[in-house]
Amino acid sequence: MKQEILQRALERIELLATVSDAPEGLVRTFLSPANREAAELVMEWMEGLGMEVCHDVGGTVRGILGGSADAKPLLLGSHLDTVIDAGKYDGALGVIGALAALEVLRDENVVLPFPVHVLGFSDEEGVRFQSTYLGSRGVIGELESWQLEQRDMDGLSLSEVLENEGWLDDAETIFYDESSSDGYVELHIEQGRVLEDADEAACIVSGICGQVRLRVVMAGQADHAGTTPMDLRRDALTGAAECVLALETMAREHSPLVGTVGQIQVHPGASNAIPQVAEFTVDLRHPDDEALEHHLGELRNAFDAIANRRDLDFGWEIVQQNGAVDCDPDLTKILLASLESVTGAHGMLPSGAGHDGVILSTVMPIGMIFVRCQGGLSHHPDEYAEPDDIAAGIDILVEFLKRWKP
Amino acid sequence: MKQEILQRALERIELLATVSDAPEGLVRTFLSPANREAAELVMEWMEGLGMEVCHDVGGTVRGILGGSADAKPLLLGSHLDTVIDAGKYDGALGVIGALAALEVLRDENVVLPFPVHVLGFSDEEGVRFQSTYLGSRGVIGELESWQLEQRDMDGLSLSEVLENEGWLDDAETIFYDESSSDGYVELHIEQGRVLEDADEAACIVSGICGQVRLRVVMAGQADHAGTTPMDLRRDALTGAAECVLALETMAREHSPLVGTVGQIQVHPGASNAIPQVAEFTVDLRHPDDEALEHHLGELRNAFDAIANRRDLDFGWEIVQQNGAVDCDPDLTKILLASLESVTGAHGMLPSGAGHDGVILSTVMPIGMIFVRCQGGLSHHPDEYAEPDDIAAGIDILVEFLKRWKP
Repeated sequence: MKQEILQRALERIELLATVSDAPEGLVRTFLSPANREAAELVMEWMEGLGMEVCHDVGGTVRGILGGSADAKPLLLGSHLDTVIDAGKYDGALGVIGALAALEVLRDENVVLPFPVHVLGFSDEEGVRFQSTYLGSRGVIGELESWQLEQRDMDGLSLSEVLENEGWLDDAETIFYDESSSDGYVELHIEQGRVLEDADEAACIVSGICGQVRLRVVMAGQADHAGTTPMDLRRDALTGAAECVLALETMAREHSPLVGTVGQIQVHPGASNAIPQVAEFTVDLRHPDDEALEHHLGELRNAFDAIANRRDLDFGWEIVQQNGAVDCDPDLTKILLASLESVTGAHGMLPSGAGHDGVILSTVMPIGMIFVRCQGGLSHHPDEYAEPDDIAAGIDILVEFLKRWKP
Repeated sequence: MKQEILQRALERIELLATVSDAPEGLVRTFLSPANREAAELVMEWMEGLGMEVCHDVGGTVRGILGGSADAKPLLLGSHLDTVIDAGKYDGALGVIGALAALEVLRDENVVLPFPVHVLGFSDEEGVRFQSTYLGSRGVIGELESWQLEQRDMDGLSLSEVLENEGWLDDAETIFYDESSSDGYVELHIEQGRVLEDADEAACIVSGICGQVRLRVVMAGQADHAGTTPMDLRRDALTGAAECVLALETMAREHSPLVGTVGQIQVHPGASNAIPQVAEFTVDLRHPDDEALEHHLGELRNAFDAIANRRDLDFGWEIVQQNGAVDCDPDLTKILLASLESVTGAHGMLPSGAGHDGVILSTVMPIGMIFVRCQGGLSHHPDEYAEPDDIAAGIDILVEFLKRWKP
């Protein structure tokens, strides 16, 4: 790839990172002013490539590059929204990297025998409505029926927001169903440390893990920390501590299972009071749905046994459950060959994080490329990917586009 | 004891519980309007017994009942302040119970051969200044030199509060030093479930536990819960969970040691983020200072080993440390005989909670009586002691007063 194309991609990543709803730090949420400004910027870049450009009412943008033949399009892209105080690469890399790959092909005078659609989704992180993937749900037609009554922090429903804040001027419908395309491919930073640990620039994603999010409550009795002998206690926190360690042990013994307690609260929460209630979250992920379901059952039994032994009341609520998504074997085969041609590697990883492909996989085959990010850091201002690794990611996309047949 | 004396004591407990700074729930803090109103009520009751009554600038009240001979006084009493949303018995029982015991003696025409001073301290709980025992510290002369620069939540220093809100009208100095008295005896609810568990109405206190309060921090690395394999994690919460259980195991194995983690916070505290920091309190108590010091060292070693094994940074700060206080053997012997004559029992317990005796023990021998409270519940609106148990406590005080020689 010409240095100039990589340089432009890196500059665009920096520029997009300055488009924020907050005076300090990067934030772009569903239909926010900064998110629309970012979308307009991307549309300009798309026009610069001679693409046919549009946006939908939900703020998702699309650029179409016609191919030399009348074939189903290949879809590329990622999301333009961010978490609060975000990094520069999560999402942005997938959109800007796709455009860079098309620039490389133009530079090499390659005309693909199929159209390419590059998509910049307006919501993947789900910050505004606590509900992920609004952008990609929109393009498969789910927004018409789905969660329109969901409300944001200001109490506005999604349907109200679409009506009053929606990007109505010149809005077009962007829509894909089962017959629309034979593939969506996304370039994304890994958001983990596995590639760094293995000293690899990039890998191909085998699938997106299934995920269960739980709210667990252990309840005992609040007593005076000084006057209650150990054998008369019903301490909710010591019970919760056993659960935290039981989860860790289970996940360690059953890789690639991962399990995390990320939040814990105790009540009454005084240094001299034995905790009456300990409430905590569990995040459990596995690339195989059946295995995840099995471990979930085992975990529940383990927690139940801990609560019984300690005479604690035990509450267990599944807050969210997403099935695992497999990347398409045919797409993945071509992606692996492309990876090998660029870096010489042939590594695969399941994605522990969710991506727009989860939604698009319901109507078309999907594939993904991960590039290494420093220290695995993501959702953080210090998120960073090396230019060489970004170049590798773009080159893998280029190789894939050259090899793919619709 | 005449039913009428017990009845009056119970009514006074109910009445005092209605004197509150808050519209709902019981709160009386250092020099607050309700605390002064409670003190005035107690002074009226003391006057009704023919006592010579006064208060000091800090709001502590005293009634003196002269004896038949010129001897050093015996001190009785407890505190009139409360925690927020308090129970009716903690503190109030010791003051009202002492007055009831004197009523019993009057009713029996017993004139003691020594004066009795009944004290109602204005601050034991330490709510306003986060600093306990201001009332009893005042009467041993500590307030003149001690923590006058300490500030309350409104930013007022203790010296400013004494100057501007102090009970200046007719204030007298209440002062005791090593030569003042040979004994302070306090009646208090147990605030634990040991008596209930043993089916005993009352017991004698062997001493007040030493207490250490710690702030412990475990720090690792915040990573994505979905993308970070278990073996690449530095999870602060799983480290803290091990500490919580190590403390529990140690205390269980070394009764009467008690150890509690009452507060825990994790950062960043998102369900999909591996905790970077877990910060928690440790409350550790033992009636023997040397044993407490030993266990504290062992605990630190255990936490340190956990942090090392998990590659976590480890912080350990002693926030507060109070030495253990022994009750006086001679006083306790007489209290035990009095207990046995009333209930037939001869049980002793260390007090896991602090009491005004901690401060008074620096200038005179102390002794304490515990009465059973329902479910061990204290510092709670549902705090409750049975009338029969309160009667037992008063009777033990009466028996003690009859047996004690200055």
